[in-house]
Amino acid sequence: MGNRGNGRSVTSRALDLLGAFDVEHPTLTLSELAARCGMPKATAHRLVGELEAWRALERNADNRYQVGSRVWEIGLLSPVPRRLREIAMPFMQDLYERSKENIHFAVRKGHDALYIAKLTGHRAVPIISREGTRLPLHPTGVGKALLAFSSSEFIETYCARPLARCTRHTIVEPGRLRRELALVRARGYALTNEEMTLGSRSVAVPVFGTDGRVEAALGVVMHSVCGGLTRHVPDLKSEAAKITQAMNDHRTDPYPGFVHDLPHEG
Amino acid sequence: MGNRGNGRSVTSRALDLLGAFDVEHPTLTLSELAARCGMPKATAHRLVGELEAWRALERNADNRYQVGSRVWEIGLLSPVPRRLREIAMPFMQDLYERSKENIHFAVRKGHDALYIAKLTGHRAVPIISREGTRLPLHPTGVGKALLAFSSSEFIETYCARPLARCTRHTIVEPGRLRRELALVRARGYALTNEEMTLGSRSVAVPVFGTDGRVEAALGVVMHSVCGGLTRHVPDLKSEAAKITQAMNDHRTDPYPGFVHDLPHEG
Repeated sequence: MGNRGNGRSVTSRALDLLGAFDVEHPTLTLSELAARCGMPKATAHRLVGELEAWRALERNADNRYQVGSRVWEIGLLSPVPRRLREIAMPFMQDLYERSKENIHFAVRKGHDALYIAKLTGHRAVPIISREGTRLPLHPTGVGKALLAFSSSEFIETYCARPLARCTRHTIVEPGRLRRELALVRARGYALTNEEMTLGSRSVAVPVFGTDGRVEAALGVVMHSVCGGLTRHVPDLKSEAAKITQAMNDHRTDPYPGFVHDLPHEG
Repeated sequence: MGNRGNGRSVTSRALDLLGAFDVEHPTLTLSELAARCGMPKATAHRLVGELEAWRALERNADNRYQVGSRVWEIGLLSPVPRRLREIAMPFMQDLYERSKENIHFAVRKGHDALYIAKLTGHRAVPIISREGTRLPLHPTGVGKALLAFSSSEFIETYCARPLARCTRHTIVEPGRLRRELALVRARGYALTNEEMTLGSRSVAVPVFGTDGRVEAALGVVMHSVCGGLTRHVPDLKSEAAKITQAMNDHRTDPYPGFVHDLPHEG
C-alpha cells in the first residue's frame, strides 16, 4: 500500500502513531515515531501534523511528540476501566488509610498486569507503577496473584515463554515459577521481594468474580526494609471480598472482552 | 470532500468520531455518532469499523459504541495531566485522610473546570465529578476559585456569556457572580451551596504558580447538611501552598498550552 493508501490504511496508520507511545517511550521524535511504526518519514510527518492539529499529539519544549491531553480526557470516558476504578477506589482508600503504603488494583491483559488504579502518599516507597502501566505478571505481586489463579493452560503458556529478568531476584526459571504459583494458590496471597524493583516488596491477593474466576488483584507495595508484609493479608482479603460483592452489585452489563485475553494482545 | 477524502480528512474525521463522546454521552449508536459528527452514516460506519478493529472503540452489550480501553491506556501517557496528578495526589491524600470527603484538583480549560484528580471514599457524598470531567466554572467550588483569580478580562468575558443554571441555587446573574468572585478574592477561598448539585456543598482554594498566576484549584465537596465547610480552609490553603512548591520543584519543562486557554476551546 502506497504513501497515500485508502481510508482504512490512513486511519489505522494514524492510530498506530498514537499506539507507538508507551510507558518507556512517553515522548518520541518524528524519526522515532516513523521507525516504531515502520512508516516512511514523509507519511509519518503528514499524519503527525493531522494528529497534532486535532491535539491528539502535542510537542513538548524539546520538540518531542507526546500524547495530547485531549486523548487523556477522551480515554477517561472508557466505561470499563472507569467502572472498575469507581468500584475499587473506596476500598483501596480504606486500605491506604490503614497501611499508608502504595495500593494497587490491576487486571490481566494478555501476558501483563494492567494497573487500573493506584493510591499513594508521601510515606509510600516511590515505585514505577502508574495507572495505565502494564508490567509482566511474574515479578509483580498483583501479577503473581492474577497468574496463580488463571487457568492451568494459561499458566503453562506463560511459563513456557521467556521470563524477563527485572532484577537479580526475579524468578526466571519456569519450574521455580510454577512452584511459587502453587504456593500462592495454597496460601491465597502472593509475595514479591525486590523481584520487580530493588528496594520494594509487595503482597497481593486475587479478586474473584462471582463465577469464581479471578477478575483482578489487589496489592500493597512497601519498602523492602519494612517487615510485616503479611500483616496486610487479612485486610487485603477482606477488601478483595468487598470488591467482589460490589462488582456483582454493579454488574448490570458485562465487561465484554476487557478482562482476560484480548484479540489485539496477540 | 467526498466519501473517500484524502488522508487529512479521513484522519480528522476518524478522530472526530472519538471526540463525539463526552461525559453526558459515554455510549452512542452509529446513527448518533454520524449525527454528532455531521457525517454520512456510510462514512461513519466505515470509519467506526476501523476504530473498532484498532480497539479505539468497543461495542457494549447493547451494541452501543463506547471509547475503548486502549484509548484509556494511551491517554494516561499524556505527560501533563500525569505530572499534575503525581504532584497533587499525595497532598490530596493528606486532605482526604483528615476530611474523609471528596477531594478535587482541577485546572481551567477554556470556560470549564477540568477535573485532573479526585479522591473519594465510602463516607463521601456521591457527586457527578470524575477525573477528566469538565464542569462550568461558576457553579463549582474549584471553578469559582479558578475564575475569581483569572484576569479581569477573562472574568468579564465569562460573565458576559450565558450562565448555565444547574440548580435553582446556581448564580446566573452576571452582577451577582461578579460580586461573588470579588468576595472569593477577598477571603481567598470559594464556597458553593447546592449550586452544581442539590445536596452537596463545596469549598475550594486557588493553587498559584510561582509567577503568581492561578494554575489550579483544590477543593472539598461534602453533604449540604454538614456544617463547618470553612473549617477545611486552613488545611486547603496549606496543601495548596505545598502543591505550588512541588510544581515549582518539578517544573523542569513548562506545560505548554495545557493550563489556561487552548486553541481548540474556541
